[in-house]
Formats: sequence, structure tokens, C-alpha cells
Amino acid sequence: MRTVSIVNVTSYTALELLRLLNQHPKFLVTSVTGRSAVGKRLEGIFPQLHAVLPPPGREVPAVDPALVITEEPAQTDLAFVCLPHAAAAELAVSLLKRGIKVVDLSADFRLRDASVYEEWYKHKHPAPALLETAVYGLCERYRERVRTASLVANPGCHTTTSILALAPAMAGGIVGPNVIINSITGISGGGRTPSLSYHYSEANEDAHAYSLEGHRHMPEIVQELEAVAEAGGHPVKGGLRLTFVPHIAPMTRGILATCYADLLEDEHGRLPTSEEIRSFYRQYYVNEPFVHIVERPPHTKWAYGSNHCFIYPIVDGRTNRLIVISCLDNLIKGASGQAIQNANLLCGLPETMGLAGLGVNP
Amino acid sequence: MRTVSIVNVTSYTALELLRLLNQHPKFLVTSVTGRSAVGKRLEGIFPQLHAVLPPPGREVPAVDPALVITEEPAQTDLAFVCLPHAAAAELAVSLLKRGIKVVDLSADFRLRDASVYEEWYKHKHPAPALLETAVYGLCERYRERVRTASLVANPGCHTTTSILALAPAMAGGIVGPNVIINSITGISGGGRTPSLSYHYSEANEDAHAYSLEGHRHMPEIVQELEAVAEAGGHPVKGGLRLTFVPHIAPMTRGILATCYADLLEDEHGRLPTSEEIRSFYRQYYVNEPFVHIVERPPHTKWAYGSNHCFIYPIVDGRTNRLIVISCLDNLIKGASGQAIQNANLLCGLPETMGLAGLGVNP
Amino acid sequence: MRTVSIVNVTSYTALELLRLLNQHPKFLVTSVTGRSAVGKRLEGIFPQLHAVLPPPGREVPAVDPALVITEEPAQTDLAFVCLPHAAAAELAVSLLKRGIKVVDLSADFRLRDASVYEEWYKHKHPAPALLETAVYGLCERYRERVRTASLVANPGCHTTTSILALAPAMAGGIVGPNVIINSITGISGGGRTPSLSYHYSEANEDAHAYSLEGHRHMPEIVQELEAVAEAGGHPVKGGLRLTFVPHIAPMTRGILATCYADLLEDEHGRLPTSEEIRSFYRQYYVNEPFVHIVERPPHTKWAYGSNHCFIYPIVDGRTNRLIVISCLDNLIKGASGQAIQNANLLCGLPETMGLAGLGVNP
Amino acid sequence: MRTVSIVNVTSYTALELLRLLNQHPKFLVTSVTGRSAVGKRLEGIFPQLHAVLPPPGREVPAVDPALVITEEPAQTDLAFVCLPHAAAAELAVSLLKRGIKVVDLSADFRLRDASVYEEWYKHKHPAPALLETAVYGLCERYRERVRTASLVANPGCHTTTSILALAPAMAGGIVGPNVIINSITGISGGGRTPSLSYHYSEANEDAHAYSLEGHRHMPEIVQELEAVAEAGGHPVKGGLRLTFVPHIAPMTRGILATCYADLLEDEHGRLPTSEEIRSFYRQYYVNEPFVHIVERPPHTKWAYGSNHCFIYPIVDGRTNRLIVISCLDNLIKGASGQAIQNANLLCGLPETMGLAGLGVNP
Repeated sequence: MRTVSIVNVTSYTALELLRLLNQHPKFLVTSVTGRSAVGKRLEGIFPQLHAVLPPPGREVPAVDPALVITEEPAQTDLAFVCLPHAAAAELAVSLLKRGIKVVDLSADFRLRDASVYEEWYKHKHPAPALLETAVYGLCERYRERVRTASLVANPGCHTTTSILALAPAMAGGIVGPNVIINSITGISGGGRTPSLSYHYSEANEDAHAYSLEGHRHMPEIVQELEAVAEAGGHPVKGGLRLTFVPHIAPMTRGILATCYADLLEDEHGRLPTSEEIRSFYRQYYVNEPFVHIVERPPHTKWAYGSNHCFIYPIVDGRTNRLIVISCLDNLIKGASGQAIQNANLLCGLPETMGLAGLGVNP
Repeated sequence: MRTVSIVNVTSYTALELLRLLNQHPKFLVTSVTGRSAVGKRLEGIFPQLHAVLPPPGREVPAVDPALVITEEPAQTDLAFVCLPHAAAAELAVSLLKRGIKVVDLSADFRLRDASVYEEWYKHKHPAPALLETAVYGLCERYRERVRTASLVANPGCHTTTSILALAPAMAGGIVGPNVIINSITGISGGGRTPSLSYHYSEANEDAHAYSLEGHRHMPEIVQELEAVAEAGGHPVKGGLRLTFVPHIAPMTRGILATCYADLLEDEHGRLPTSEEIRSFYRQYYVNEPFVHIVERPPHTKWAYGSNHCFIYPIVDGRTNRLIVISCLDNLIKGASGQAIQNANLLCGLPETMGLAGLGVNP
Repeated sequence: MRTVSIVNVTSYTALELLRLLNQHPKFLVTSVTGRSAVGKRLEGIFPQLHAVLPPPGREVPAVDPALVITEEPAQTDLAFVCLPHAAAAELAVSLLKRGIKVVDLSADFRLRDASVYEEWYKHKHPAPALLETAVYGLCERYRERVRTASLVANPGCHTTTSILALAPAMAGGIVGPNVIINSITGISGGGRTPSLSYHYSEANEDAHAYSLEGHRHMPEIVQELEAVAEAGGHPVKGGLRLTFVPHIAPMTRGILATCYADLLEDEHGRLPTSEEIRSFYRQYYVNEPFVHIVERPPHTKWAYGSNHCFIYPIVDGRTNRLIVISCLDNLIKGASGQAIQNANLLCGLPETMGLAGLGVNP
Repeated sequence: MRTVSIVNVTSYTALELLRLLNQHPKFLVTSVTGRSAVGKRLEGIFPQLHAVLPPPGREVPAVDPALVITEEPAQTDLAFVCLPHAAAAELAVSLLKRGIKVVDLSADFRLRDASVYEEWYKHKHPAPALLETAVYGLCERYRERVRTASLVANPGCHTTTSILALAPAMAGGIVGPNVIINSITGISGGGRTPSLSYHYSEANEDAHAYSLEGHRHMPEIVQELEAVAEAGGHPVKGGLRLTFVPHIAPMTRGILATCYADLLEDEHGRLPTSEEIRSFYRQYYVNEPFVHIVERPPHTKWAYGSNHCFIYPIVDGRTNRLIVISCLDNLIKGASGQAIQNANLLCGLPETMGLAGLGVNP
């Protein structure tokens, strides 16, 4: 049994960690922190935790609703850090010193280059020395490195959806450098802090684009897609020309990326068909438990409440463009589920442990 | 490992059974039927089943997405019957003859009196002889009988919510015979067959009452509340005077019953306080894994995706009325989760097996 | 042309006033106030006002999106006060002194008895002297008094829905003093200030009851129902025994009250039928432009975006209870539409002017 | 006063016509048809019509809820045809022969080339001779022609949103031929006929792309964007290379197009800035009452229930792409509101008559 702490437990990613960990056979939550709620019991914040039951094969639940929220995390085997950026990096330094493995759900260790971080996050990186050893926690790409790491940078939700969608095409040299990603996300991605944007009466029956001046997940997507292209032997000459426009739709969970790129001809001047690309994608992800190539445009709801990602590539024959649609639950494969996937690897457990649930449908 | 079949697999209760069973350690779905889809593979109907993974400790998933839908159920240890009423009873007869245990999710075996059934369902009962041996599958009331039964009548969603809310008050003789139950349900309770009432553009942003002339769950509630009062030594003289008005609100899942009844004075002419009643309720359900007495009005969302029920009793001091609010997920504790709870009992397994998940929040 | 000011223009009731007044032929908005937004232009707060167009027969729009928000209301013929209680009464005093007619959307002048006000609002009434002259602005009841008033207390949303539902039954002596009102409201009733309760991810897919300890609309309902019974020659002996439980459902607009009361026998020991009661209700409201007795349970959506109220009474023959269901748009007939209805009367204009729109469906 | 008939009155576009016409000062609905509902009264289908009131300055409402639905349209000045394609063209022929002006809300007369129509709609055009005289009813483009026409092809919802977004850029030669339009629409666009796709429990909390093989609004967009470019003196060499991917989000109304195109350098090798483009757009639409260039990404909700369209162009400086976001209410400016705008022009009335309402917010 491994002990874990959850830092900033009053967030949605923390709540989702609690739900998932409660059914995990090998983790025990022994410490929870949260500045605004110090001294309160967990069930005071989340009354739905009254209902914890032990997972199969265990006597006690993995989460104790009577656990008291503290200011500082106790000594545990691993910590999930759900703090905002900057604060996360600062805490990570001290946790690592105490020998605690860290899965950081913030953006602090996702960008390899501290100057890119500073450009997008508008402050100096609090722990640039750790950028070397931090592993980008997209398990489908870096699972071997994660196994031996002590600090994992859990990817963002837009990023995970987009990279999984385009990685095969970039790795296979199927498309050129002109890429547009149009993303639709549910509202829980905006977090648990009330604001007018996420006020029910504003957000219900509304769709709109945001971050048109540049969304912080963009450099993360560029970094990883260029890396996967390079690794596949098809480096992007001149760099990726990515436009990324996220949208909000009136739903709690779910994220869907529709990606557009120009198909490249092969050495015989031939363009691939939808079937060939789908088959290539299927092969690329053949051993992935959480990535599924499907035969029709996927629905975000299929993934609701699960760690799964559904991907559908198709060729637009009129324009020779590749369209790839990818979707998942932003709070799970896009955050807390992926964090547990990383924690499993960090702790030498089976990668899918505690994450095998299907989407809650309808 | 027990084999099970799901009859009428294209329904929402069946889809929810598939999701829950997929994580159940001891059941294996080996047969699925569905008239409109005979010959199709399960994943042809529900593409989200692509994502099945084995539950903890198993090599293969409990649900095979490639399973072919047949007309007749194969020989299995147990069958979940998700047919409409009348059709369900007819099939149950033959299943029982083949030695297959039956959890019937229809209304056919819920009412003990065939003439009451005929009054409400407007046709002769197809198998009145079975009414004797059928057990009403509200585990909190009848779990001992379920253990040795072969046919279980799985309660309705409004019924489960209402009975769990009022059973302690009736058993304890706390309230009189005048009862009003005002229920709010999500739309999935209406099933998977498209109709104008459940058409998104009609149902979104809309609340309304329905079945004002009398909802079929009403006699079921009366039967069980009178029985629990009788069993508690406080029979309802003259019978329960119940008004039950269900409403639909624009949400997929969730059901919430707000119950009103007149408080009775005790032998000293004293009326109980909210605290006394809450304590009595807590004691009444002290050993129930799925029923939780809470300290503030519960939210349907707390139960979303789980088998849990949350109950909040409070006294209206101005009028000496008891108000009890109860909520759960209509497709789980109100249908498929409770069906698995019954199946566990029928098969000698721990009652909570495969059902320990928390609500998916937010 | 009458000039009007809107006080606390950053609220939802103010936004709805702006929308409705923009199509009103005889009002011109010349002053808007709002502490948090002083100095900003109206369109800076509500960009959707870019789209104002003149109403039929006018050259300029009634609302100017470039109007600058001030701290104090300018001199106008009438003011709509959208402030919270207490603040509203204080301002009303000074507005009336300046000769400005006031439609107060707060609760400050709804209760005739200052001590009842203090019991429910937990502070001394700021202007008890005005309680004498203030008219309760339920036009269906008090339109003649409103015509000659200078201060109108615009009723609450739960209140309007409930009183319109039960007024005929109370006036006609059809029911006894035991009344239960179970209300379901959309979320916009909670206002525009962000909070966790109205955070999209919390409120979506959720239903729950609130204010179980007593909602402030309750004494207002009691006061008016007792008054209508008295006026109808059927005073409620011993006072109304009202239990009122409001619920929130996941929708922006709409409020629906389901009311339960015991039918009284007439002098011949006879109970009325549904048809008789419906006919009595139809007669009672025969000249009302905004109240409609319908033949089946009404949907909140029918009223969405309109000033209409739909009412459906039916007898529960099993228990001899009257059930009355009533619904409307909480922001219009339950707030801003009714405020304009009152303003029309105060200004000698046709009562329906600017309010004839149908519900926006689907 | 002009008389109008509405053909296929049981559709959502017809319901929206009824709502809007009810407040129109110069139209009177005297005939409604609908095969499935012949002999029924209008209020039997739409009970919300109980609430009709006369518009300002009129004695009787423009819509009579007691109007009986017939099989054939009566003689009127104008007919709104809400039939599916093919059926619409057939009826239009006979209506025009009877001297009735026609606003056709179907796709039958939108494409100028009968062979393109046959390619996309998979059947022979029923009235190719009328294609010459039919006018494409995008008033912002063709209002002069509409004034003298007898048959107007009312544009589709995706089309209106997209063309209004890109017309200035194409007319001004600002962008090249590579265009991607990513559209998000509400569910009412799918009509009133129940189906699993629009079943509440399926559609709620779900986003997905559809018509990936090619949506029928695409050739319409291409035809009109190429025409506007040509008319602006910047013909698209080689034709537009358009990829159009529509998505469905869980909301009843609202459509939002996010359009991507490559910026062209001017004769001095300079690229335009966001400010320059916004100013050019503002000038282009300076006299349009329903098209508004806004300063931040628009929300579909701003347009909810109104005939307005909000547009936001911005340059992606990293990639030299133009992004234009455009949104409106799919049932109004995308269907019935635009139909009335056309009917106004056809009948010599002010174009904005009956359409000046603001969006219903929140």
C-alpha cells in the first residue's frame, strides 16, 4: 500500500483524484491540504464523500471523509500537486527534498525551456533546475521515463487531446507544418473558483471562443508535436505553424479537438486515404489501453467519467486535408486520471490500475 | 465466476448494467438479446464499449464488445430482464423453468396483488402464480428473502427514492397517514426510445409535472409504506392517503423526492425535533452501505453515477410537518445498480460488490 | 414619452428591464446607476446591447448602449429599483421626495407589517412610514390601487407563481388552511453575483431543495393568500398552515409551483370536480391578459422570455386534494415584466404595453 | 395588412415564425398547413400560443391559436414554406402560379446550378426553371434583388453565419483560397422530429462533429463566398479550398462559426493588423442593422432569441492567419427571422419590422 497526499484538495482535479483513488487497490490518501479550508474535515467540503466504501479486496476505504485538511502535506510516498502554477513548482522543490515523488498537475514543469515558460506565464520559473529531470507525463509517449522519474509534469487537457490526435500523423510524416486545432471544452476545465464566466446563467446555452490572443496550452502542444515528429524521423522544417482556438460549450465535462493539417504526398506522389490513415493510427496505438481509434466521429460523452480517449482521423478529399477528431474527459485523461496513470508508473504498479471504468452513459 | 444475460440490451438500464458489470469481479456477461438489433455486435449499438478493460484481478473484461445480440437469452446463471412490463413476466416464466435466476427490472412482479396490477397496467397479469414467490428487491427491506429467491422484482426509481425517505418515519409511527410526495426526476428515466417529450430542444430549459392522473409507481409506494408501517408496529389506519406528483427537470440523471407528512405526538403529547428524527433515521440505516443521512439538503449530483442514496429529514416547526428529502441516481440505485445489488445477494456474493464507486462530481 | 432610470443596472432584473424597455413604445431609459461600474458605458457591461434598434414607430432606441453608469439616479418620471433589500428602501425614500415614482423590485415594501419584515430580514425596516402607501404590485389583484400609487412593491418570483395558483381557490373557499407549495426554480433567480452554488459545474445536472428553515417569500405568500381569502368572503380560520419548499433545477429561467391543499365540501357535502374547478379558475382570470388556465400540466418553457403565467388545477380523487400547478418566467412575470406592467399602470399606459411577446420556444 | 400562410407549421422554423409574426405590425397569419396535423387547431400543437396578445397598435393578434391546420395553403399574399427539400420546390411552383410570393426556408433554390444541387441532394431538381428567378435571400448581399423578387431562397444557418463572417475578407481580397470553417451549432437546427441523436439523454453533456463526409451547406458557402470575392474584384483563383466541419453542442439555440484563412500581403508586402481588419469589417457592415462587429469574442447567447449576428475578426500574428468568429441564433437570423426580413423586403415594408428585439439574456 502506498500513501499519497493531495495538495490543494478543494479543487476539482483533487475531487476527481479522491473519487478515483477511493476505488484504487493500492493507494491510501493520508494527507490533504488546502489553505482556505485548513482544520476542516474533507466531508465538510465535499459531503458526497460520506458515501465512501472500501474497494474490492480491502477492509477500509482509501479515502477517509473525516481526514482533517492541513496547511502542509505530511510525509507520504507520493504527492499530487493541484496548486496553480508557480506555487506548484515551489512546493515541488521541498517535496522532492523530502523524498516524496511528485505528480504536478500544474503547468510548471511541462515546458522544457524556462524562457518559453516565462514568455507565456509572465514570471520567472521558480525552479528551473528541475526542468531537466521532470518528465512530461503523457504516458503514451514517455512511460518508460516516467517509471524511473521522481517528478512528473502532468499534461494539460487541451494538450493531451491534441497531441494524441496528431502524434501519429506527425510521427509518420503524413502532414505538413500548417496545423489548426479547434477545441471545444466543458466548463469544469475552468476550475472550482466562482466567476462570472462560469456562472450558470451566463454559461448555460452559450458557446464562445476564448484566449484568441494565445492560450497557454499552445507552446506545450508545439513542443510535443515537434518532438514526436523529430522522433519519428520527420522533423518539422521551420517549426509547426499552429493556430489553436479553444471554445467553451455548455457542459460540465468533455473536451474535443478538431485538428486540420495538409496531407503530404508520399515518394510516389500519392496521398493516403482515410482507410490507410485509420489503419496507421490503429497500429500506432495498438497497445494503448486508453486510446481508441473509432469508425465514426466520437462523442465527448463516450468518455464521460472515464480515462479513455477516442480518436477519428478522416481525409477531406476535396482539399487534401487531414481532419482528426479526438475527445476525452478533461478532468480524467485530461487531468486526474492521467495523474493516477503516472502515479501507477512511478510506483511500479500496473498502469491501468484503478482506471478501468467505462464512461458513464447516457 | 457467474454468467449472466441481459435481456433487451438496447435500453438505458442495460447500458448501465454493462458499465457496472464490466468492473464487477465475479460476473461475466455471456448473452445479450434485443429484438431490434439481432445479429449486431454490442459495440455496433454502443461504440463507447470499445474501451472495455479487465477489472482488477482479471485477465479479460467482463463485457465483450464483440458479443453478438441474439433473439433469445442463452443459458446463464442469472438474467437481468430489461423488457417493458407484460413482456418481462412472460419471459421470466420460461427463464425460471430453465433454472435461470431472474432480476426483473420491469414492474411486473412489484405489486403483490394481481388485481391492483391490472387496475394500473390495464391488462391481465401474465404470470400471477409467480407473485407468491417473487421478492420485492428493495435490499434495505428484504435482503434476507432475496438471498434465497429465484425471482426478484427490482423496484422503480421513484419508488426506491420515496420508500427509503419515508420508511423510518412509517416504521417508527412518527407520522400520520396524510402523505404528499413531490418528485423531480431526470430525463433518462423515460428510456432510450426517442419521443417529442424527450427531444432535446423540448426538454432543455423546461420543468413540468406529469402523470397527474396517477403514476404507476404510486401503488408500489403505498404497498411498501403500509407494509413497513405494519412491520414496525404502527399500521396505517384507513390506509395511506398518498398524493404523488412526479416532475421532470432538464438533467439526464438524478431523482429527488420531497416528502411531506404530519407529525404525530408521542404518548406525552410531544412532537419530535429535527435532531431527534435525524438521529432516529441515522440509527435506522446505521448498517446500510448505500443509504446516508446527511446534515443538509442533498443534491442529486452527489449520487450521479453511483449506487448511493442521500436522505435529509427536517421538521417544519410552523406546521408540525415532517419534510424528508431523498435523492439518488435513477439509473443506478433506482434501476441497474440496485439490480446488481440484488444479483449479488441471489448469487451469494457480498452485497456491495462492484457497486462501491462514488458519485462522479462535478 | 416617459423617462425612467434603472438603479443597480448590473443585475439580471435590470438587464431584463433593458431588453423589454428597448421594445417599449413609451419609455426612454435616461439614467442607469451601479456602484461597481460607475463611469462605464452600458455596453461595456452588456456587449449584447450593441444590437439595440428602435422599436416600431420610433426613430431612436429606448436604450442607449453608450449611456454612462452613474452613482446616483438622475431626475426621471419613474425609477426601477433593483437594489438588495434595505438599500432599496433607503433609496426609495429619497426618490419619492424628488417626485419620482418607484417600482421597487426588492422585498422592502412587500410585507405590510414591519415586525414581520424584521423577523424575516433580520434588521429594522428602513422606512416603515412608507408601508402604508406602498401598493403590492400584483396587478391581477391590485391594479386599481397601483394606478394611483407612487410606490409599488414588485412581488417576488416564488410569490407571484404561488399566489396566482391559489388565489381563486382561496377566494372561492374551495380549500382548507392546510397548504403545501413545492416550487422548482431556475438559477437566474439567484442573481448575477458568482458563487459556488451557481457555479456551472456545481449547478448543472443537479436538483436540490433549499431554504428548508424558511424562505423569505413565505410570509409574503401567507399575507396575500389570507388577504385574498378574506376579500372573497372565506377568511382562513386560524391562519394558513403553509409549508413552502423551493428547489433549484438546472435551467436558467422558469419557475413552477406545485400546490397542494385539502378540498372542502360545499354546503351539500359535495366535493368539486376537476372540470368545475378549472371552469371556476377560467372565469376568475377571464379578463387577465397574462394568466392562462390550460388543459394539461404546463411547461416552464412555454413562458420562457414572456410575461405569461400558465395554470393547471386538478383534483386528486383518491385523497380529495386540490393540486394546482403554475409556472412563469421568474425574470419576467416574476420580476422585470411585472415591474413594467406596474410601471405602465403608474404612468397611465395600457397595462400590456411592451409585454405582448410570446415565449421563446423551443 | 398582408396575409401570410405557413406551410408545414409543425416544424420549429414555423413555430418561430408564429412567435415573431405575432408581434409584427403588418402581417396576419391566415393559413397554416401540416400533413400530420390536418384538422387540429394550432393551439392543439403548440399550447403556448394560448398566450397571444395583439401587437402594439392592433386590436387582434396576428396569430389566431384557434386557426385550423389544413392540407393546402389558402390564398395569401405570401407563403413561408417550411417543408423539406424537394417537397418545397414542388409546392413553390404552384404557389407562384397562384400569385403568392414565396419565402422558401428549404435548400431547394439556394444553389444556382441544378447539377450541384443533384450532386449534394441526390435527386433531380424538381423545378430547375425557377433557379433563374429565385433570389438568394441573404439580405446583406441581395436586398435590392429581393425587393422585386417573387421567390426567395432563405439561406441555411451554417451558411448565413459563415458568409457574414468571411464576406468582407473575401470582398476585400484580404485572404487567400485556403479556408477552414469550424462550426458549433445548437440542437434545434436538427428540427422537431424525434431521433436518437437529438434525444435529451444522448445530446446532453455531449459535443461531437458530424457530416465529416461533407455537409450540404458547404456548396452554398462556396458559391456565395466565390461570388462575393468576384463582386469585390478579388476572384478566387482556382476556386475556394474550403473544409467545413460542423459540430453539435448541448444547447437548444445558437450557432458559432470559427473561420480560418491565410492573410495575403498587400502590394507593399504588408500584412494587415487586427485593428485594420476590424475597422474594414466595421465599415463593410456600417449600415447593417443586424450585423455587429464586436471588440471581443462573441457569445452565441448574446443573439439568443434575436435576429442579430455578432462578428469578431482577429489576426493570429504567429501564423499570419485571419480568424473570424461569427454567431447568431440559428432559428432566427439563421432561419425564421431572416425569412421575415426577406418577407418585409418582398412586401415593401421596412426591413427590420418585427425583428428589433434584443437577445434574451441571461
